[in-house]
This record gives sequence, structure tokens and C-alpha cells, in this order.
Amino acid sequence: MALWPKLSDEQASPQARAVFDDIRNTRKADYINDIWRVLANDPPLLARTWEQAKTVMGPGVLDPVIKEMIYLAVSMTNDCEYCINTHTAAARAKGMSDAQFGELLAIVGLANQMNKIVAGVQIEVDEKYRG
Amino acid sequence: MALWPKLSDEQASPQARAVFDDIRNTRKADYINDIWRVLANDPPLLARTWEQAKTVMGPGVLDPVIKEMIYLAVSMTNDCEYCINTHTAAARAKGMSDAQFGELLAIVGLANQMNKIVAGVQIEVDEKYRG
Amino acid sequence: MALWPKLSDEQASPQARAVFDDIRNTRKADYINDIWRVLANDPPLLARTWEQAKTVMGPGVLDPVIKEMIYLAVSMTNDCEYCINTHTAAARAKGMSDAQFGELLAIVGLANQMNKIVAGVQIEVDEKYRG
Amino acid sequence: MALWPKLSDEQASPQARAVFDDIRNTRKADYINDIWRVLANDPPLLARTWEQAKTVMGPGVLDPVIKEMIYLAVSMTNDCEYCINTHTAAARAKGMSDAQFGELLAIVGLANQMNKIVAGVQIEVDEKYRG
Amino acid sequence: MALWPKLSDEQASPQARAVFDDIRNTRKADYINDIWRVLANDPPLLARTWEQAKTVMGPGVLDPVIKEMIYLAVSMTNDCEYCINTHTAAARAKGMSDAQFGELLAIVGLANQMNKIVAGVQIEVDEKYRG
Amino acid sequence: MALWPKLSDEQASPQARAVFDDIRNTRKADYINDIWRVLANDPPLLARTWEQAKTVMGPGVLDPVIKEMIYLAVSMTNDCEYCINTHTAAARAKGMSDAQFGELLAIVGLANQMNKIVAGVQIEVDEKYRG
Repeated sequence: MALWPKLSDEQASPQARAVFDDIRNTRKADYINDIWRVLANDPPLLARTWEQAKTVMGPGVLDPVIKEMIYLAVSMTNDCEYCINTHTAAARAKGMSDAQFGELLAIVGLANQMNKIVAGVQIEVDEKYRG
Repeated sequence: MALWPKLSDEQASPQARAVFDDIRNTRKADYINDIWRVLANDPPLLARTWEQAKTVMGPGVLDPVIKEMIYLAVSMTNDCEYCINTHTAAARAKGMSDAQFGELLAIVGLANQMNKIVAGVQIEVDEKYRG
Repeated sequence: MALWPKLSDEQASPQARAVFDDIRNTRKADYINDIWRVLANDPPLLARTWEQAKTVMGPGVLDPVIKEMIYLAVSMTNDCEYCINTHTAAARAKGMSDAQFGELLAIVGLANQMNKIVAGVQIEVDEKYRG
Repeated sequence: MALWPKLSDEQASPQARAVFDDIRNTRKADYINDIWRVLANDPPLLARTWEQAKTVMGPGVLDPVIKEMIYLAVSMTNDCEYCINTHTAAARAKGMSDAQFGELLAIVGLANQMNKIVAGVQIEVDEKYRG
Repeated sequence: MALWPKLSDEQASPQARAVFDDIRNTRKADYINDIWRVLANDPPLLARTWEQAKTVMGPGVLDPVIKEMIYLAVSMTNDCEYCINTHTAAARAKGMSDAQFGELLAIVGLANQMNKIVAGVQIEVDEKYRG
Repeated sequence: MALWPKLSDEQASPQARAVFDDIRNTRKADYINDIWRVLANDPPLLARTWEQAKTVMGPGVLDPVIKEMIYLAVSMTNDCEYCINTHTAAARAKGMSDAQFGELLAIVGLANQMNKIVAGVQIEVDEKYRG
């Protein structure tokens, strides 16, 4: 169970309610993910994190589905159940295919493996790649 | 200092030397990254990890530069100095721009932040996203 | 399910039972958290970890609620469900307010974000801060 | 070596330069930590992360030195060399004593130990602490 | 819920089915762990990871039960619920006693504690142990 | 540079000096690893961590070299440079061969890979392995 309750639109403060409105406008959807309803218990924290998420995951030089896959790579490495479930749904909604998800899994597995083998042998960066 | 020495072409066993040859053929370049020269101390481990890396990072449904950025997202989350340096070089060689690197950094930062805030409030996956 | 059963007072060995007594005396409460009942399957491990927890979390130069918040910061970073739930309860019992919990969450989120952005750009410690 | 160069005041863009000014005003000091000079290569990322750090680490319900110690607990758990060095300096400047640093270390060690022992025995949250 | 369905023998592709056969032959048992049935959604990923697991965890210089305990030490550190449960069962099947499991837990706890205390004081490797 | 100085025998307090004596007696060697000289800045922390290390890594049901390899598996997963260097030296002194080190690396790599692939597909523990 979450350590803070999920706040309904009625329970949310005006500041939190304004964030809910912006989420709905930005996503063109009525549904608001539970994380925002929980963070509504601390409206400034909700406002800051939503603003940051909107900016970082919004239009930029990388394709939206690629942004979701990078977000997923981090969340898989941290084993964040909530984040993996919601962002896999988001990635699929933005076009991630099963084949792409399979390659993502394979790269995340390989990178985690190599990161730790590299740590295990304590290898230093090649002369060639140093500044 | 690495816990195993870097083996030169001459010091490498025939099995390791065959891997070096395949690396050169695959990459169309003479230079062999130090990690492979260190793993050459255990030729079967070298052969298996190189084969896996070649397959996973090779041609597929995702663009090569995107594969490198996903690899980097994991390596940044694990703070693997060797991996970040060598794969940033690889990503740049495959076309990653400074603007793309900036967006990668921003997403990695956001995801790590949200992964831990989500842990901190112990929120459960929305009813909507459960199977 | 835990990999070891929770031992009741009757099932616990004399050494484990003595630890249970000390937990009750120290906490001025009859309830014993499940972790201690599980670790009772290895009485010396139970005795050592309880002794350490009692000493480290006991009276010192830092306020007890601050100690709990530092413990929580680590547990949130490691996403330890058991530890977050029990130590949030402990922190609240020792006076942590909702506003303090909100600031804790925000700092944990910020630090995890910056730790990884710093890794991502591989920045070295400022000349000024080196010994 | 950092993957992006540190930008001097002269090399920074007007947006980055404005952040440098705000850092100097907020900290009442001329020195700007290297992390901000590196992030100046992506001015919007610099602006967002500085704004967040200023807000989260600024005045609130928790004492400034406590905020630094919570930040340090996360950074120690993630082994972020840059963050540990700079925030230990910040915590000391705000009054952290050697005895407090020693207790911080002990709690970080204990929590990391218990987080993993708890994982190792896969214990579930006590009935008592569930919502 | 897993993000991919578990595939039955009938649902699996010929390549995945061949892996199932090899798992049964290697383990001398009919039961196939759910992870392989899930990875069967990406047959080449299934084939590669099973081949690697078979080789790495198979006959070598380390005793099979010791290999399982090393695997468990990593999985406990990463708090992988699936891996801890299945590999504890495997380790017990290969002879791990309760006393050995207790020592494993104690070492994993100690190492995680010391890893973070060492990070916290930022100590450098002794002159004596450098190459 | 370490955040606390290394204390010589002369600089150490009587409590810390007594720990140094016990380290020398236990290890039958004059050399004291730098970590203990740094922790001597907080004598009770030094005394507790040394006592714990002596007990956990001392005689038990697991072979001393196996204990070191389990400790290394955790330290490699956490990428603790100090711990990997000193405990690899300890493991070698207790008989770890190059072939055993190679298998350790391979298992650590495999487990870290599978831990994250398992997270990535969010698979639940097989019915069969639940309590």
C-alpha cells in the first residue's frame, strides 16, 4: 500500500488540481496515473516533478518512443515495478513493437552484465578514450 | 589497475586471437578495446561475451545509435566509468549529437529520480495497467 | 513468502529468546518486528544484527527521528519495501511530519537524479575539494 | 575527464550565465562548482537542475545540515565520488561535526546491510504495518 | 503480472521448443521454470540466455552449490525476488544447508555494509594492493 | 582522497590501538589495511565493524576462500573499487585460482544480466516455488 493516499480531484488542493488539469491537457486524456494522485499530498513536489516530466519527456530531438525506451532501460536496471509497468504501457502506446521490446531487454541485460564484469576486473579507460 | 593484464596479440591464446580477428573484421578497424584484451585471460569468457555483444549490438530493429544510447542509460545508472567512456565514444561515432546526449542525460536523471520517489511512497501499479 | 519461517517465542532458541527480551526492554513494547522472528532461525546472526541496530539507532549526537530519515533515504534508494514500510512507521512514531516526509522524498529524488547525471557526464571532483 | 568541457563565464551562453549569476547570489559566494560549468553545455538542463536543487535544498522544514546529510546518505549508497566530496564539504560548512559524520556512516552501513539481509530472506511487511 | 505471457509447449515456436527440450535434457526434469516460458516470446533471446546459463552454471572448477551461492549473493544485492526464490531452491536442491545459507546472508550483509562505508569515507586502494 | 586521514599507531586512540592489535593477532601479520586506519577516526565504529568482519569472515561452515568469493560477488555488483582490490588479494592469498576468478566473473555477469531481464519482463515467482 502507498504510504500516502491517492487523492481524488475533490480531495486535491487547488495547486494539485491545477496540475491534474495540465496533465489532462498535455496527455489529451482524462485518466491521471496514480503516482500523480499520491504526490498530490505534497502539491509543490507534484508540481515540480510533473513539470520536469512534461519537459523532459516532451518534444525534443529524440523520438517519443525512444525516450520511453531509455526511461525503461533505467527503470529495469533499478527494478522499479511501478515505472516498468506504466512506461511499458506508454512505450507501447507510442509504437514500441514486441521486437523492439525484445532488443531493449537484450541490451539492458548485456549492459548490466558488462558493467559488472568491467567492475570485476577493474579495468581502466583505454588511453585512446581519455580526454 | 586491472586485476588481469591486457594481452597483446602475441600473448593471446589461439582462441582469444580468433576473437580479436573477429572483432577487427566486424568493426572494420584495427584497434581492439582494452576490455577484450583483459578478458583474453579467460578465452571462453572472452568468446562468449564478444559473441553476445556482437549479436545484441549488431543489426536489428533498433537503430545502432539508439542501441548505444540504451546501453549508456544503463551504464550511467550503474556509474560504470569504463562503459560510459567507451560507449559515449561509440554513440558519437554512430551519430549521437550533443543535443541527443543532453536529452539522454535528462531522461536518465528523471527516471532515476522518479524510480526512487516511487519507491519512497511505495505506490502500487494502477489497476488499469495490471494484467 | 520469507525463505525462513517466523519463529514464535516458543519456537525460538534460548539465545534468540534472550534477544527478543532485549528488544522488548529496549523498545518498551511487546511487539517484535517480523524481521527479528525470521532472523531467529540463525541466532548468532540475529544477536549481532540486533546489537548493531540497537547501538547505531540508539542515543547519539543525531536526533532519533533524523536517524530514521537517514535510514529511510538509504532504503528508498535501494527500494527495500520491508525497510521503507517499517522505518516510515518508526519515523512517524518518533515525530516525522508529512512536510518532513515530503522534503525527504524530494531530497532522495534530487540526489538520485544528480548522482546519475554526474555519472553520465563523468565529471571529476573540483580541484578545490580535493585533499 | 568529463565528457563535456567546463565552460568559463565567457564561454557560457546568456541563459547559462544567468544561472551562474543566480548561483552566486544564492550562495553568496563567487565560486561555482564544476558540475554547473559542465551542465552549462546544455543550458536548459542546467537551468532546470539548478532551479530544482535550489528549491529542494533551500529553506524548508528540515535543517540545512540535515538536508545535506540525507543527500549524502543517498550519494554514499550510490557511491557517487563527486557528490560525496562536494556535499561532505557543504555539510561541514553548514555545521556537520565529525561525530555526526561518524553516525551518518554507521547508519548508512547498517541500512545497506539490513536492506540486503531483508532481501536475502525475502521477508514480507508485517501485517501490522500494512495499510 | 509478467509483461509477456508464459508460453506452453504448444504455443512455443520450434526454436523455443528446442530450447525447452534442451532444458529438460540438461536438468533431467520435466518442469521448465517460468522465466524460460516468458522469454520464449523472443526465441533468439531465450536461446542465447539459456545457452549462457547452461555453460556458466554447468560443470567447471567451482562446486555447483557454490556457483548457486555466488549467484544468490548477486541477486540478494540486487533484490531480485524471482531470482532469489528460484536460486535458493536450486542451491538447497544442490545441498546448501541452513547454516550455509545463514553464512551467505551474513557475508552479503557485511559486504554491502562495508562497500558503502568505504564509499562514504572515499578511501583509496592501499599502495600495497596497487599494480 | 579519503575524507578522514589514515591514523598511524601513534595517532590512534587506545580503543583504536586495541583494535589494531587484534587485527595483527588475528591475521598473524603486521600490516593493517588502510580502511581500518581511516575508521580509527571513529573508534567505536572501527571496533564494531572489525568485530563483525572478524566473526563473519572467520571460521564457519563455508571455506575461507569461498567466503571471499561471495564477498567479491557483492563488491563487484556494487562496483566498490577498494573492496574488489583488497578482497581479490585476500581471495588469492587464500587459494583462489585464475580459473576460479574467471568463473566468479562469469557468474556475476550472468546473474546481473538475468536479474535485470527478469525485472524487465516483471515475471512473478513460479507457483511451484512459493511457500
